Amino acid sequence: MTTMLLTNIGELTTNVERDGDPCGTLHDSALLIEGDRVAWVGPGAEAPSAGDAEVIDAGGRALIPGFVDSHTHLVFAGDRADEFEARMTGTPYAAGGIRRTVAATRAAGDEVLRARLRAFVAELHAQGTTTFEVKTGYGLTVADEERLARLAAEVTPEVTFLGAHVVPAEYAERPDDYVELVCGEMLRACAPHSRWIDVFCERGAFTPDQSRRILAAGVAQGLAPRVHGNQLGPGEGVRIAVAAGAASVDHCTYLDDADVAALAGSRTVATLLPGVEFSTRQPYPDARRLIDAGVTVALASDCNPGSSFTSSMPLMIALAVREMGMTPAEALWAATAGGARALRRDDVGALAPGMRADLVMLDAPTRVHLAYRPGVPLVHTAWVGGRTVA
Amino acid sequence: MTTMLLTNIGELTTNVERDGDPCGTLHDSALLIEGDRVAWVGPGAEAPSAGDAEVIDAGGRALIPGFVDSHTHLVFAGDRADEFEARMTGTPYAAGGIRRTVAATRAAGDEVLRARLRAFVAELHAQGTTTFEVKTGYGLTVADEERLARLAAEVTPEVTFLGAHVVPAEYAERPDDYVELVCGEMLRACAPHSRWIDVFCERGAFTPDQSRRILAAGVAQGLAPRVHGNQLGPGEGVRIAVAAGAASVDHCTYLDDADVAALAGSRTVATLLPGVEFSTRQPYPDARRLIDAGVTVALASDCNPGSSFTSSMPLMIALAVREMGMTPAEALWAATAGGARALRRDDVGALAPGMRADLVMLDAPTRVHLAYRPGVPLVHTAWVGGRTVA
Repeated sequence: MTTMLLTNIGELTTNVERDGDPCGTLHDSALLIEGDRVAWVGPGAEAPSAGDAEVIDAGGRALIPGFVDSHTHLVFAGDRADEFEARMTGTPYAAGGIRRTVAATRAAGDEVLRARLRAFVAELHAQGTTTFEVKTGYGLTVADEERLARLAAEVTPEVTFLGAHVVPAEYAERPDDYVELVCGEMLRACAPHSRWIDVFCERGAFTPDQSRRILAAGVAQGLAPRVHGNQLGPGEGVRIAVAAGAASVDHCTYLDDADVAALAGSRTVATLLPGVEFSTRQPYPDARRLIDAGVTVALASDCNPGSSFTSSMPLMIALAVREMGMTPAEALWAATAGGARALRRDDVGALAPGMRADLVMLDAPTRVHLAYRPGVPLVHTAWVGGRTVA
Repeated sequence: MTTMLLTNIGELTTNVERDGDPCGTLHDSALLIEGDRVAWVGPGAEAPSAGDAEVIDAGGRALIPGFVDSHTHLVFAGDRADEFEARMTGTPYAAGGIRRTVAATRAAGDEVLRARLRAFVAELHAQGTTTFEVKTGYGLTVADEERLARLAAEVTPEVTFLGAHVVPAEYAERPDDYVELVCGEMLRACAPHSRWIDVFCERGAFTPDQSRRILAAGVAQGLAPRVHGNQLGPGEGVRIAVAAGAASVDHCTYLDDADVAALAGSRTVATLLPGVEFSTRQPYPDARRLIDAGVTVALASDCNPGSSFTSSMPLMIALAVREMGMTPAEALWAATAGGARALRRDDVGALAPGMRADLVMLDAPTRVHLAYRPGVPLVHTAWVGGRTVA
């Protein structure tokens, strides 16, 4: 078993609450990795003797848990740069653009999608993301959705079946028949590769009744629910998610007081996706309001070719601080521990004995630099399960 | 002399105007480098035979001129992460914070500043910046300003003497004495290492009369003028810059119609610095208004520890598109050719025979991705004078 002792860590964010600090911040600390797990965390002066361990001097740099990106759509072909360019000069975002990516994805072979996915995984690692979810939703036939779920499962255990991403063109006149397919044959084909069931509950996508039905069908097949809701306008998405016991409801831009209260009284995480608002020029969700009400908030990239083609968790943090009223510490917590809660994972998102050794050394003395130095690549080294990936 | 032939370039931005396209865009093209210069640019089918040249297949990727960052403050010590954090929770930005960096910089030895500067140069190269300006302005004594100018000149020919950054604490009660020093002994010490004279013409920094005097003194010593103006409120900065024949006036957030008309009728570039507005939560300058009036616009990072600690030209492009009404093509032009004009350089910022071989291959098929994929590191390879730097 390989062991590794990180010494001289200037600022260590453990996310193990300590003296009222949710980030459990330590200074001048050390961290021991044994195999793929964290074995010890504490003050540098009390570090265990290195023995055979490889010693890495962090040189006063900051160390953080790896980012947990709980919302991505990374199995697809093509891009929509032209649509982005048009939108930036005035054409509003519409969910229907998803159908273009569906056409390109259906036309692409497994090897094309697999190569693309591998490139995205390298891109995520290079930016400090060590756990990520991937959704289907650009196949929208039984065979294509099964294929996307299967390919996604090659790179992450956090696969979400999102047959209910949008009603495909061929079902435009009979959306209920499509819901029937999603809840039946398509779900049965995808469930063996998936952990999660998701639905885009929004005007132009799926109605509240359809959404409830889809989540219930997924749960009956052993999947755990999560929801896309309240992105483009007010609606029932949040309350449907809470009622279903969803791990997370994602977007949460348009919330009324009842939505906020429902979230605060639940275990459902509000996952905010500021890359979408940046890239669609929509108003940002009000993270401050949610945190002040006691809601657990996560940040994720929503990386997808339509509304947010960024995989940068550091940029999500910078936007959350600039635009959404979060402090740098809250934003980092949301991008790590918050993401872990949104995926109901207790082995990632924090650094304590027994947790997976997923960590990132920053080219910076403190985590504040993630927002203070927007756009600058600050990942010095990233480890997944104790193994260097960037 | 080394030669290198780049083939299979999916989209090539030359910035040599062609059929009404200021970006002079070519598709399926090739580019030949001989020594440190571009020797040939054109359609792939017409490329010269490679001969002894190293052939690099761009694999359909986009190629752009290297970024020209015409406004940075990279010689300093310390940082102001705490001030950033406080500002993000409500404390407004004030120019006086500069004095903290002055104190840290004066206390730092040459080797500390030199190591920091070298790290910044690597950071710039990794992000595709191939030409950059560096200002003094954190010394504010004759010896310290001379030292900063000398250190900056080790890494770039584009050194700007900015003794007139802020009135240092020790001159707070007698600012005109400080102006006297800047225009006399300090200028004479710094001029041998500098190409430019600059002044921060703003309420709280230097008055219009002081600014005119400082620029004139610099010009008399053989330096060329540039100005920080109209950042925090309306003022005379733009008109002073135009009257002085400045290469650039930087910030330009608060402009009246007379300012815009003065710029449009001049050779003075309006350099916009959206990293500042991002990091100080100020309103963004209106690039659209300037471009529509016929003003030449550049984008730069203003990388400094107080108001914009980012060196990311791709983020400046993304912000210009999201927030300032620029198209992706206009933003890239402004970050390359615009920066070259702001530095009155005719050897960089474009790709044509005879230009310096400063270029960046993107991990993307088109330049639109620089705004479409905000925060994602997209630099595949960067060359300065034909030499790989990232």
